[in-house]
Amino acid sequence: MCYNQDMKMINTAPLSGMQELLPKKQEIFENLRTQIEHIYKKHGFWKIETPIIERKEVLLAKAGGETEKQIYFVSKTNDGTSDEALRFDHTVPLARYVTEHSNDLPFPFKVTQVGRNFRGERAQKGRFREFYQCDVDVIGRNNLPVAYDADIIAVLTEALAVFGLDGLVVRINNRKILRGLMVELGLETKAGEIMGIIDKAEKVPAETTKTAMLDLGLEEKTVAKILDFIQIKGGSKTVAEDFAKLGIKNEDFLAGVAELTEVLKILEEQNLAVTVRADMMIVRGLDYYTGTVFEVFVDEDRSLGSLCGGGRYENLTGYFSEQKFPGVGGSIGLTRLFSVLDRKGLLDNLRMPETEQKLAIIPISAQEIGFALNFAKEKRAEGWTAEVVMLDKKLGDKLAYAGRIADFAAVIGENEVKTGEIELKPLNKA
Amino acid sequence: MCYNQDMKMINTAPLSGMQELLPKKQEIFENLRTQIEHIYKKHGFWKIETPIIERKEVLLAKAGGETEKQIYFVSKTNDGTSDEALRFDHTVPLARYVTEHSNDLPFPFKVTQVGRNFRGERAQKGRFREFYQCDVDVIGRNNLPVAYDADIIAVLTEALAVFGLDGLVVRINNRKILRGLMVELGLETKAGEIMGIIDKAEKVPAETTKTAMLDLGLEEKTVAKILDFIQIKGGSKTVAEDFAKLGIKNEDFLAGVAELTEVLKILEEQNLAVTVRADMMIVRGLDYYTGTVFEVFVDEDRSLGSLCGGGRYENLTGYFSEQKFPGVGGSIGLTRLFSVLDRKGLLDNLRMPETEQKLAIIPISAQEIGFALNFAKEKRAEGWTAEVVMLDKKLGDKLAYAGRIADFAAVIGENEVKTGEIELKPLNKA
Repeated sequence: MCYNQDMKMINTAPLSGMQELLPKKQEIFENLRTQIEHIYKKHGFWKIETPIIERKEVLLAKAGGETEKQIYFVSKTNDGTSDEALRFDHTVPLARYVTEHSNDLPFPFKVTQVGRNFRGERAQKGRFREFYQCDVDVIGRNNLPVAYDADIIAVLTEALAVFGLDGLVVRINNRKILRGLMVELGLETKAGEIMGIIDKAEKVPAETTKTAMLDLGLEEKTVAKILDFIQIKGGSKTVAEDFAKLGIKNEDFLAGVAELTEVLKILEEQNLAVTVRADMMIVRGLDYYTGTVFEVFVDEDRSLGSLCGGGRYENLTGYFSEQKFPGVGGSIGLTRLFSVLDRKGLLDNLRMPETEQKLAIIPISAQEIGFALNFAKEKRAEGWTAEVVMLDKKLGDKLAYAGRIADFAAVIGENEVKTGEIELKPLNKA
Repeated sequence: MCYNQDMKMINTAPLSGMQELLPKKQEIFENLRTQIEHIYKKHGFWKIETPIIERKEVLLAKAGGETEKQIYFVSKTNDGTSDEALRFDHTVPLARYVTEHSNDLPFPFKVTQVGRNFRGERAQKGRFREFYQCDVDVIGRNNLPVAYDADIIAVLTEALAVFGLDGLVVRINNRKILRGLMVELGLETKAGEIMGIIDKAEKVPAETTKTAMLDLGLEEKTVAKILDFIQIKGGSKTVAEDFAKLGIKNEDFLAGVAELTEVLKILEEQNLAVTVRADMMIVRGLDYYTGTVFEVFVDEDRSLGSLCGGGRYENLTGYFSEQKFPGVGGSIGLTRLFSVLDRKGLLDNLRMPETEQKLAIIPISAQEIGFALNFAKEKRAEGWTAEVVMLDKKLGDKLAYAGRIADFAAVIGENEVKTGEIELKPLNKA
């Protein structure tokens, strides 16, 4: 709250649920975002940007349910007649983009979107209404080899490395396996509810999970089978054996196992800096995935939440087009992750890439400003970040200011101008 | 317009007035944006990001008039009760930011904002409702030396160089000079209207300008003086003489001349790659500037419009705070400029910095995918953009695809895996 010059009180805090950082923290955020974008790019993902504002009918084509309640409508008139709204994710705009431009795109289309999305969440710690997401997707026309599922997981885990967290684990499942199991157990009609219970199983006592399934009317024996099943996890060889032991011949189940095994094998061959394993507890609740699903965690610190997740969807553009565009994708929720790491003091662990050293050049009087500006230009060409402090203050004040903005200072007086010999003094950082 | 799978027709074009680019054009856009941001950063400007959504009262504190009519209101309920809206520029959010965080910022605060702003313009060629602006500002606490006006102009002209346009001219004026002249001529009460006429003088015949002033009730003699005055232009020496000849002793006038001369001198000392000159025709119409004002044009092609502009304002935060924060700033309207250059076919002239070469790695069968992925990793470490084409198609089809996404291809078969000898073949670009 501040009083303005007319003594009117105005709230100058940013709106709740919106990220606003001080410059030095913003620099870290930018650094992370830039590194992620660079990794995506090096893996061959084309960056696109769609408008933040979309037609209501485009967004609502997919939204429905909870998401619809979170949509921000946009209008000039503010009279309730809005037919435009803010995008709530990158997927719907991507579906529209691919439909609209399909004749001009190469397929498989490897695409990345990094930008802000908007959701009307209730104000709550760690819940953002405006947040960055860093998406990668591969979209096929008519079909898309399952090897691209591994491609998406590989690029995302490489990008996650910028956060400097040890012990990353990628946990992978395939929805077809779960669907096949449900059919095998004669539970098709209850599949949605059971998958919902599995999705939560990690976060509640085993007894709660069991009771929830019994409450659905499942037999003890069936529940025991499911509880055994969701314990399956490990590398491609281990789980292949575990699945075989179940003796299930359902087609979906077998297809899911084959896909999961292929994805695991491709990832295992790459010596990624993360642990990769199959894990039957990963469901990704209400999402629209149809095959591979995955999430990345720090095993030792589940309080960080899921660092990123994604999966395979059978058809990206069903709401907009008769053509079929299967895809696989995933997303790093940068704003959320940054805020969690910040709160836990983990941003200091970041392995930042070499950044340019900052140099403050201080002319003693106005006479030396011209010389100082040309010197700054030279230093920038050499790779420095360099600026001239043009304050009309005492040298001590100028140096104090330099200490806040730079790593080195160069004081320029008559003598420096004459000799051209300039000393760069390291500044003690607060 | 597309039919979706339910045969419902959905308009999948982006909304009018919103930029949406195909991937290769987006790459050029990103490249320009990144270069501009990098130049700003190297000159010591700290990047900040404020939310895209702000309180209505914050935005309307400054808006008023035309801008108010262009504001987009945002609401979850779409019932006309919105008290939040989309920012229409970077300046109002910056004022709020500086007010809110002043205790944590170094002053002078050199700050840059690069992002999208929103205005409800009428749909019209070249008018964007959602557009990127690349702002730089220097904000002082209580006071700010005029040398920073030159700093802003220097960094903006260096940034404009990324567009590869020859013949850039920075035209600079100082509002105090105009204000002083009006007082000298006894025209204070008509100053606003006269400055409006001067602002348009370039775009209309001389006779129109003259008639407009006569219609305001000015005497022929006075009009002649003003018309002579607005012809004044040139370097610091030339215009200092021209101003002296006028013999005006008004305090504002003299202060303006002194400031303008200082800014010109500092810029002239720097050997910038652009022409810098005083120009009394530059007014910057309705804006809130109080001292230096400037615009950059290509002299030979005025159809490009003003490439960027800005100026000095006496107090950034008057609407929010009792404290005084004078500033100077300017902005490159990236979306508008990009679209003008694109329309004129001038994007091909861009001097793009060295970008990473793109390599498509093609495994002949699924057997070689693992090897190919590891080879891609190696090539990325060497600086390449590298991806593996995992399509389940004939080699010819894979090569055709590679031609659309990459500069080089490497085909990996049994032999390459065995020998480790891999040839990178240049792809003929369409």
